Amino acid sequence: MTEDATAARTGLLDYTEEIESELTRILTVRALQATTYGAHIERLWETASQCILGGKLLRPRLLLGAFDAMRTGSDPGRRASAVRLAAAVEVLHYAFLLHDDVIDGDLFRRGQPNLIGRVLEDHRRITTEAHGCADDIAPINDRALHWAQTNAILMGDLLLAAVHQTFARETLPDEIHTRLLDILDDAVVDSVAGELVDVGLSDGVVTPTLQTVLSMSRLKTSSYSFVLPLRVAACLAGADPDVIHALEGIGAGLGVAFQLQDDLLSTFGRATEHGKDPFSDLREGKETAIIAYARMTSAWPEIASDFGRSDLTERTGEAMRARLIECGAERFIASLIDDELRSLRARIQSPENPLPRALQDMLAQLVALLEDRRA
Amino acid sequence: MTEDATAARTGLLDYTEEIESELTRILTVRALQATTYGAHIERLWETASQCILGGKLLRPRLLLGAFDAMRTGSDPGRRASAVRLAAAVEVLHYAFLLHDDVIDGDLFRRGQPNLIGRVLEDHRRITTEAHGCADDIAPINDRALHWAQTNAILMGDLLLAAVHQTFARETLPDEIHTRLLDILDDAVVDSVAGELVDVGLSDGVVTPTLQTVLSMSRLKTSSYSFVLPLRVAACLAGADPDVIHALEGIGAGLGVAFQLQDDLLSTFGRATEHGKDPFSDLREGKETAIIAYARMTSAWPEIASDFGRSDLTERTGEAMRARLIECGAERFIASLIDDELRSLRARIQSPENPLPRALQDMLAQLVALLEDRRA
Repeated sequence: MTEDATAARTGLLDYTEEIESELTRILTVRALQATTYGAHIERLWETASQCILGGKLLRPRLLLGAFDAMRTGSDPGRRASAVRLAAAVEVLHYAFLLHDDVIDGDLFRRGQPNLIGRVLEDHRRITTEAHGCADDIAPINDRALHWAQTNAILMGDLLLAAVHQTFARETLPDEIHTRLLDILDDAVVDSVAGELVDVGLSDGVVTPTLQTVLSMSRLKTSSYSFVLPLRVAACLAGADPDVIHALEGIGAGLGVAFQLQDDLLSTFGRATEHGKDPFSDLREGKETAIIAYARMTSAWPEIASDFGRSDLTERTGEAMRARLIECGAERFIASLIDDELRSLRARIQSPENPLPRALQDMLAQLVALLEDRRA
Repeated sequence: MTEDATAARTGLLDYTEEIESELTRILTVRALQATTYGAHIERLWETASQCILGGKLLRPRLLLGAFDAMRTGSDPGRRASAVRLAAAVEVLHYAFLLHDDVIDGDLFRRGQPNLIGRVLEDHRRITTEAHGCADDIAPINDRALHWAQTNAILMGDLLLAAVHQTFARETLPDEIHTRLLDILDDAVVDSVAGELVDVGLSDGVVTPTLQTVLSMSRLKTSSYSFVLPLRVAACLAGADPDVIHALEGIGAGLGVAFQLQDDLLSTFGRATEHGKDPFSDLREGKETAIIAYARMTSAWPEIASDFGRSDLTERTGEAMRARLIECGAERFIASLIDDELRSLRARIQSPENPLPRALQDMLAQLVALLEDRRA
């Protein structure tokens, strides 16, 4: 099931137009401002806008869905804040993706060129036109890649700044405003800490234990993708502390399940459905929970000899997958996901749970869509 | 004359303790927060703090000096805001330096290892200890450099976020608060645009004309280093619009003079005084105003053949310098600086100038220190 189809089931798709319109507003203001700085930055905003508007908007839809399920009053100003902050959360997501792509040296995301890939394509097109030569004699060179990655670093900075500007400018009671700034800060600090550990794992600086990998996922994925939208929604809706506390736990669980599914799908899923290179995690030597489990089994020495080989063939990749299944790594991660989702469902539907009914329903639907996730 | 000596002359040194104490406070809070995330991020904050506290604090001293010269009331709350924002401006400066160093692949700054260089040293020490081998067999490898540069990207993000958090949390009248957020936004957007053009020049994407190089310097250096501190000071002190307008022009001029001096000193100055590799700009092919001028002369073809050569010898470097002097590039840039400083002095001391007397004096002293600058 695609994210769109699942979103339609939960009713979260209803928000797409509202969020896209707010994102378009923010991006148009920035793109207009950029026209005074010349063609390169103008073009960069165009490219970034296309990438941002092509996203699935999972995080802002979660924020608005949760806000609408919790709001008790009908203050239109508060709802307008929720829409602006929902769009800002999507911009934050994209700022993180940009810097991650620079760090990982990636040129693609979900089978499409990412911003770096697009700047490279642009650069190649312009160079080819200028020199009148065919495509194949304008290859990616070091300077072109350096230029494209610099574009991504700097656009990430601009977007990170823009997110903070949006949070800073909301006109809200002081207590709520400060709380929102705390929530944003927690998400940024968690995500950066998670990314540092993730890179430390890949670079051999951090020891790859299962516990470290799971705690890294909680910091890198749960915090800004699930906990942040739910906390912002609760804060804006004036939810009680026990509701906020329950939501923080649920957000953390949703994020871990989501990340483990991502790992499972990219290693064992159908490439035709998830659109990724099916062996990229194995080829890059990505320290997922699957690998952390496999390291503890007797199958590891054999898997290790090909793990992280950039010249991994399809055949060897398939053999590695088979071994990861045999050693129980796939089954173990699948059971972790099942446990997490079962625990989430129980907590959401528990009669002692302080969450308003509409919010329980929305979260239960979200858990159901994760249960059915195939891409 | 060193920056410290010049600062002592202008009285700006008086602020050092106040600013360092505020910076220490901010950094201690962050370092404490980091302890919950494990050793790597904790160590990263330690290293970043050492780098930040080792700075010359030119920008925050300018901010506080200008604020004290403009304040009319004696509201202690407003002065405390000025101290916090002055420290934040230094943090912004360092966040930009970190991302610049990643983009430029630099491991040193002013003759000392920068954050990337220090993380590399740490990494090497730990690797050597773990494997019990001597220093010379733990060379910089790709993964170590990747790890160190990732540390710099992520710390830059944390600091950029922290600066915005500081501005966002100031309790000030709405109008002043919004104005301060605008001022910060202008500085960030200008600096990023300037950096993009600077890299575009190096990567051969932007045509290196003198006008482009000068406008790049204005965006990349003047805006956040001079205009930002002066505008923040004026806004907090409640200065009149004509004072603010005059300060913006003066800040832009100071920044251009400062940047052109930097270019001149690193190409023609005494390495023993400025502490840089005397040929690094020529070796890296840095598109300074000096080079932009030289490109317009008949000496260029000969200079061009060695410009940007990573294997530039001292002898060839000295010959290039001689040619840059002969073709008039050094003289031309020196005269641009003289013109700029003369115009600044005239504007600052003009009887029609709306600046309060104490501010005129402070700015005139700053111009005098630039006139004497040797490092």
